[in-house]
Amino acid sequence: LLDPKQVAARKAVKAVKDGMTIGIGTGSTAAFAIQAIGERIKSEGLHVRAVATSSRSREMAAEWGIPLIDLCEVEALDLTIDGADQVGPNLSLIKGGGGALLREKIVAQASRELIIICDETKRHTPFGQHPLPVAVVPFGHTLTRRRLERFCQKVLLRPKAPDSPEPYLTDDGLYIYDMHMEAIADPPQLEQRLKQIVGVVEVGLFNGLASRVLFGFHDGHVEELLPDHSAHL
Amino acid sequence: LLDPKQVAARKAVKAVKDGMTIGIGTGSTAAFAIQAIGERIKSEGLHVRAVATSSRSREMAAEWGIPLIDLCEVEALDLTIDGADQVGPNLSLIKGGGGALLREKIVAQASRELIIICDETKRHTPFGQHPLPVAVVPFGHTLTRRRLERFCQKVLLRPKAPDSPEPYLTDDGLYIYDMHMEAIADPPQLEQRLKQIVGVVEVGLFNGLASRVLFGFHDGHVEELLPDHSAHL
Repeated sequence: LLDPKQVAARKAVKAVKDGMTIGIGTGSTAAFAIQAIGERIKSEGLHVRAVATSSRSREMAAEWGIPLIDLCEVEALDLTIDGADQVGPNLSLIKGGGGALLREKIVAQASRELIIICDETKRHTPFGQHPLPVAVVPFGHTLTRRRLERFCQKVLLRPKAPDSPEPYLTDDGLYIYDMHMEAIADPPQLEQRLKQIVGVVEVGLFNGLASRVLFGFHDGHVEELLPDHSAHL
Repeated sequence: LLDPKQVAARKAVKAVKDGMTIGIGTGSTAAFAIQAIGERIKSEGLHVRAVATSSRSREMAAEWGIPLIDLCEVEALDLTIDGADQVGPNLSLIKGGGGALLREKIVAQASRELIIICDETKRHTPFGQHPLPVAVVPFGHTLTRRRLERFCQKVLLRPKAPDSPEPYLTDDGLYIYDMHMEAIADPPQLEQRLKQIVGVVEVGLFNGLASRVLFGFHDGHVEELLPDHSAHL
């Protein structure tokens, strides 16, 4: 039996062409993509330059021999491969379980194409069942939290580690609040309303950014979802 | 001749009551308010607790013997006194010349009352003539800048010092872009549209936040402006 995440990652990495400037995501699924890109560099002599969405991904990419650049060095990225926590209607995504939602969104917005890779558990309904991460400024964050609580009752400050009293701090020095919405009826509207809050830096809702989603399966096959909901084998 | 900024600051500080929790702004005008509060603590034994909007204001408040607290310790602030770079229709403000717009906005939003103090040069028209500061995430900031340039041609990264090649870094680790708009027709709409940009943390446009604006004059008199445009002596 194959790992569905790895199956999706290997398929996505086939879209990487020689000479491309790519974005690489953060998390366990994106890690498989980093590995697959590293293997293609070794076996085929593939030439790419990559922007990493977190310090963890940057370190891992360096270990796999992927040449890294700063996002500010380029006008745009050709392709970004990243994971997601949940996939919803019209390829709306919940991202940020790995804590890198801000950089992931900046990189996604800078990319001509965004391929999301995951296993089919990320497709469960209703959309919004996975907690929605929101990156906030530490200054006055308890007041920002109260504004988030107007949207749902359960809003939890993410800890550094499961039992740590210290909050998790992103690469950009931000805290993350996980909003337990249960369901999100209108993702673009929610994204816009949350982002308007003073103290909110970014919301882990990605609307209109994904070009396609690849779901991997144990038997090695991949199912592709496009923004218009059409599923292809 | 008196300093108009100091005239406005002294008048505003009269609104501080014993036992209040207050917010203190950043910049040359706010500095006069810090001084006036410190003097009242010394002469009258005034009891207040204050939240500072920058490390500079915090240091200055400490020197003047003002007890400081963290914004997260309170539910709300009774009153905030701060300066502004330009005052426009219905008390819309441009703020952030001092680089503290994010914390100033968080504190303003947490305050039951916001008194803005300035001299009358801050009232010149058209609104938007003063550059509009926008706080952005350093990661990928040149791409964020290009999105800001869709609103106006001249968007300048603020340097650490006038001739420094290094960018200015805020207390929250952000860069500031100054947008030379020349005129802003619809401040609330512009604020909303700029804040939607991924990579933009906050915009130095304060709409619907100021309770009143006090303009100081050399002869010691103060003119008060309320949100409904009525001017009172």
